[in-house]
Order: sequence, then structure tokens, then C-alpha cells
Amino acid sequence: MTPITPPYYAVIITQKLKDTGLEGYDEMAARMVELGTKWPGYLGRESVARADGHELTVIYYADAESIAGWKADVEHLEAQRLGRERWYEYYDVQIARVERAYSFRS
Amino acid sequence: MTPITPPYYAVIITQKLKDTGLEGYDEMAARMVELGTKWPGYLGRESVARADGHELTVIYYADAESIAGWKADVEHLEAQRLGRERWYEYYDVQIARVERAYSFRS
Repeated sequence: MTPITPPYYAVIITQKLKDTGLEGYDEMAARMVELGTKWPGYLGRESVARADGHELTVIYYADAESIAGWKADVEHLEAQRLGRERWYEYYDVQIARVERAYSFRS
Repeated sequence: MTPITPPYYAVIITQKLKDTGLEGYDEMAARMVELGTKWPGYLGRESVARADGHELTVIYYADAESIAGWKADVEHLEAQRLGRERWYEYYDVQIARVERAYSFRS
């Protein structure tokens, strides 16, 4: 994400998928990324996966209301339900208010 | 990190090293991880590197004072200076207060 001036919000997600039964996950994940990035207040997204299937994602939004609205979106709620039922081994979600930011470019 | 109850703080770092001239970096990085995890208030750490050298790290501390103290540590200041001078192509650091957290285990 291009650096912007705080305050803004970060959703920090650590997750791991199950080893099997992942039919439908990739399509759903792509659809949720598409919808989530179109949601009002969306600022940016970083996601890095490890070889062991563990994944770390940070999604930035302008404010807490944008995040709450997206979490409660009907299509997103259904995706979350399916994720818990079928695909996720675990996830940890943290909602954080970015208070300070600084950068370096060589 | 084992889920804990907010509030606490997250330092979100996105960075990329230069392609060459990385002599000394690994030793310094290992030393800083060792010191940073021993710093009072340290709670946990997640770091994932992409194949292209881009890296996403989230380090958790109990409060903003712990983070400010570690940033101002003499040995850490010297490492930051060397990093800017020699090793980093860029970094973005964000200090965020975790307000809410929720988890799922299958």
C-alpha cells in the first residue's frame, strides 16, 4: 500500500486452510477479495502465504465503520459461514487502529 | 500468536531488501529478532516472506511505550541506521492499537 497519513484501520488476519476438501475455496476467496476491495473505505491489502499453508494478510480501511459494514455484508456472511464449515483449520482476526506510520525509500 | 484480549499493540512492517550487498544482514536480523522478543511487553511475532523478497511482519506488544522503548534502544538504532544505509530497498512501518480480536478453531 502507498503510505498514507494515520489514523486509519488495519484488519490483521492469520489463517490456515485444511489440508483437504478445499473445493470451491479459490473461487470464493477471489470473489471476497474483489468485493472487499470495492467496499467503501478500502485503502489497500497485503497478503503473503507460507509453503505450509499458513497465511498472513493485512487489509487497510479508512475507519472501523467500513470494516464492520463489510463484515456484515450478506454475501460475505455466507462466505464466512462456509469457510468455518468447510475450509478453515483456524483463523485469528484483529481490528487495529493505525496511530503512526513511517517509511523509508532507498 | 495465541489469541489474547485487546487492547494491545501491533507493529506492521512491509519491507524489501536490496538485491545485492546483503553481507551482514542475516546476522543483524537474527540479533534484532532475539533482542526484540526479549523486550518488555513483547507478545508475539508473525513474519512471512514472498519469493520476490518482499516481506510482511507483524510484531505484537502490550503497549505503545514498549514499542517506543525498543525503537530507541541503542543497539537497535544502530541496526536501523545500517539497514537504511546498506540493506533496505524500502520499508513501511505502522504502529496500530488492536481494539478487537476474534478467532476460529475447527
